[in-house]
Amino acid sequence: MKKETLILVTNDDGITAPGIRNLIEAVRPLGKVVVVAPDSPQSGKGHAITLGSPLRLNQVDIFEGIEAWTCSGTPVDCVKLARDKILGRRPDICVSGINHGANHSINIIYSGTMSAAMEAAIEGIPSVGFSFLNYAYDADFTVPRQVAQEVTKKMLETALPPHSLFNVNIPDVPLENYKGIRVARQANAKWKEEFDERRDPHGKKYYWLTGEFSNQDFGNDTDVWALENGYTSLVPVQFDLTDYRLKEKLEKEWQFQ
Amino acid sequence: MKKETLILVTNDDGITAPGIRNLIEAVRPLGKVVVVAPDSPQSGKGHAITLGSPLRLNQVDIFEGIEAWTCSGTPVDCVKLARDKILGRRPDICVSGINHGANHSINIIYSGTMSAAMEAAIEGIPSVGFSFLNYAYDADFTVPRQVAQEVTKKMLETALPPHSLFNVNIPDVPLENYKGIRVARQANAKWKEEFDERRDPHGKKYYWLTGEFSNQDFGNDTDVWALENGYTSLVPVQFDLTDYRLKEKLEKEWQFQ
Repeated sequence: MKKETLILVTNDDGITAPGIRNLIEAVRPLGKVVVVAPDSPQSGKGHAITLGSPLRLNQVDIFEGIEAWTCSGTPVDCVKLARDKILGRRPDICVSGINHGANHSINIIYSGTMSAAMEAAIEGIPSVGFSFLNYAYDADFTVPRQVAQEVTKKMLETALPPHSLFNVNIPDVPLENYKGIRVARQANAKWKEEFDERRDPHGKKYYWLTGEFSNQDFGNDTDVWALENGYTSLVPVQFDLTDYRLKEKLEKEWQFQ
Repeated sequence: MKKETLILVTNDDGITAPGIRNLIEAVRPLGKVVVVAPDSPQSGKGHAITLGSPLRLNQVDIFEGIEAWTCSGTPVDCVKLARDKILGRRPDICVSGINHGANHSINIIYSGTMSAAMEAAIEGIPSVGFSFLNYAYDADFTVPRQVAQEVTKKMLETALPPHSLFNVNIPDVPLENYKGIRVARQANAKWKEEFDERRDPHGKKYYWLTGEFSNQDFGNDTDVWALENGYTSLVPVQFDLTDYRLKEKLEKEWQFQ
């Protein structure tokens, strides 16, 4: 007898975010869903793990008919705890999101959504993070829900290489202007920081991180290009960070004593 | 007149760690040093940034003759604040560490030391993270200090590509057994998690993250191999995470509606 498909759902906006509810609705027709998500918002947590304090898990009943847990740690902690303490076996896929806001281009480096998915992929679980380019709490998730279902279904049907990981960003366009999914590469972009300097009631300075996104990559094969042109971007992601070109150059040119 | 070389020093173990003091000693003969480091330990923080609360900077006088600041945020916050509020100009290099403990192979993903260096590299500042395979507070930093000086000097003397970033790990071996520096690739390894389950005085469960490192990569060109054989490993690192091989395969084989 074929085992039922097991789908781990997580996110970084926390278990009460509309995005994770929409993701659950999108993937529940595809298998047994188990949710393990942070008990509070964890945006910008990157691949942080909790080393200096212990973690809590609490089962919650907020999604009808779905086993769901909150975790007191980071998105990566959620995936590690799900694997070791909750699921009992390796899930067939890990889906993370749907994030409220973009995680294209360099944002992947800071993203808790993508770090959760990457953690699962490191474990050999095909994984995907979904992000929607709309921050509003009451955003219309019709298109993101369709995309999440289509991509998850495709991933489950395909014999993907082990450790496959996708970064999927969905544009904020009306359904009639939406053009479909494009496989893309990570655009070469960065943030230009400008900290907002203020003074507290005691006269001491403090700083809020703000910044401006700056895309320096004008290729038409990037995730930023796809999104600006009405497409969902799908970037296959790896976690071997070796720069092989620079490695070759150094091996030729650098002599160490 | 040639501008003085400006060196930004940071870490993830916090400003009072012996590792950063040794790094400052190693690089101060090479230029003007400015230190901006976390005011508390930030191990395992990955590429986390602080979005939900403001940040503090405090100037401190703990390294003789060196301008030094503590930051209340993560290692990545330190680099962003240094760039925007302290340095006044782009530094010539950013050095991070010397971390107490290894950041080879997959550990780079979780490492605050490497994330600080990566943040600087994203900004176009040649950067390097140093990690020493010894956790002891009173470890002998003779070899790591030599390595940090040699690599930093080499980087300053070489016309490196923009965004160059190195992950340097130093083995814990006596000087007479130390073999020098090897350029390497990131080994394909992972952690096998086992959470330590306990009960608090109220009978409720909590979990401590523990784990066992598992190297599945037996090549003799990896960072793990170098370290096991008495070498310092130097891995050139990139932050374009696109998996170009998988991208090509998907473009050929996947049809979306």
